[in-house]
Amino acid sequence: MKFTVLTLFPEHVQAGLGASVIGKALERGILELSCINIRDFAGNKHNQVDDYPYGGGAGMVMQPGPILRAYESIQPRPKRVVYLTPQGKTFDQEMAFSLAREESLVFLCGHYEGVDERIIDRIVTDEVSIGDYILTGGEMAAMVMIDAIGRLVDGVLSNSSSYENESFHQGLLEYPQYTRPAAFEGQEVPEVLLSGHHGNIDRWRREQALVRTLRKRPDLLEKAELTEKDREFIRNYCKENGIVL
Amino acid sequence: MKFTVLTLFPEHVQAGLGASVIGKALERGILELSCINIRDFAGNKHNQVDDYPYGGGAGMVMQPGPILRAYESIQPRPKRVVYLTPQGKTFDQEMAFSLAREESLVFLCGHYEGVDERIIDRIVTDEVSIGDYILTGGEMAAMVMIDAIGRLVDGVLSNSSSYENESFHQGLLEYPQYTRPAAFEGQEVPEVLLSGHHGNIDRWRREQALVRTLRKRPDLLEKAELTEKDREFIRNYCKENGIVL
Repeated sequence: MKFTVLTLFPEHVQAGLGASVIGKALERGILELSCINIRDFAGNKHNQVDDYPYGGGAGMVMQPGPILRAYESIQPRPKRVVYLTPQGKTFDQEMAFSLAREESLVFLCGHYEGVDERIIDRIVTDEVSIGDYILTGGEMAAMVMIDAIGRLVDGVLSNSSSYENESFHQGLLEYPQYTRPAAFEGQEVPEVLLSGHHGNIDRWRREQALVRTLRKRPDLLEKAELTEKDREFIRNYCKENGIVL
Repeated sequence: MKFTVLTLFPEHVQAGLGASVIGKALERGILELSCINIRDFAGNKHNQVDDYPYGGGAGMVMQPGPILRAYESIQPRPKRVVYLTPQGKTFDQEMAFSLAREESLVFLCGHYEGVDERIIDRIVTDEVSIGDYILTGGEMAAMVMIDAIGRLVDGVLSNSSSYENESFHQGLLEYPQYTRPAAFEGQEVPEVLLSGHHGNIDRWRREQALVRTLRKRPDLLEKAELTEKDREFIRNYCKENGIVL
């Protein structure tokens, strides 16, 4: 899968994505990353790519011309261009799975007060927001999306099963994890995990996942895939702990 | 304000945050960033910091010892330690404003299948998620939070007014922006913005913000600060366009 990022800060995107499994997948060629510097397409002596907003107001707006020329340098012409913006549809794991099926994705990163609206109308197919907060630019958001999407591509994670049990995949938060040592400064690993009894371990983990989701993100429970046993457990847990759903 | 990041990939965090206004604020010393490599505190010959999960399952879990020792190397001892996890409270602009009032923040970045639960119990004060998606590690999420929080610190943005009119601050999405040229390959800037009539421009922008929020994120309208005039505009707009709220 190929990611192309249109940005004013190509070297930071490149460096920020070099870590861990995404970095390794880039080295191994399973993923491909191309960062295009919009400033290279400024087309003027001072390499200026922004100007004052029409109608007044603070800050600068990125001009449509340099972005269009940067976009047109991409071969073959991309099918999907994602613009990172607080205005966009909120990114989530479902969107990550869906975008991971594309062969290539282009990300347009705005800066300052954003980009001229006409370039959005012209080249952008998806306006996406990674959350309800404001960033200094779209780079960080593009990196987040590339990380979340890239890891779903076949061969990127060493063991494809490692995203089958994780948060959101079944609509629940993950159960707590423990590793060695069994006793850490007075804190012990829950006994059931040392028991070797897989049935009990699976049940304990499922119940922990249910309790965590119930306590921390009850909104997720509505969409989660629950068995009748899960529902019964939740009913009893709520009763015992005086929780009203 | 000082940010400390406990991570296995310090150089990527450092490089990823070097761009744009955050990079400049770091250079000017308005913001401070210290990335601590958890692996430096492994305490064993092979610099191992993770191990198999108790109870079985795919992946590796980060051990509590190295993280605790890395944490204890921070002087003075921090008040708030943020752990980046899908289990956490969802980060938003309100939380960004609240955290921007702290003098220092520590971010703990997990990797692989996460960190041993006991270290969360012991040192973490805030579990935070930047959105409902899974990343390969906490680094990208820490970078997003540092970017969103850092830009709110006095002196980081050149003009403090530039975050007063932006998305989410008044609970609405932002109006569209335009800059030169006035005509771009057949696409014109809306005439009102060239009129010089500030009253009309302000009104047009407000209405654009209302329409965008209504069309793209109607959930935000409930919390937004609306005037009676705004409400009347929305009622009329919905009526004309057959929208039922």
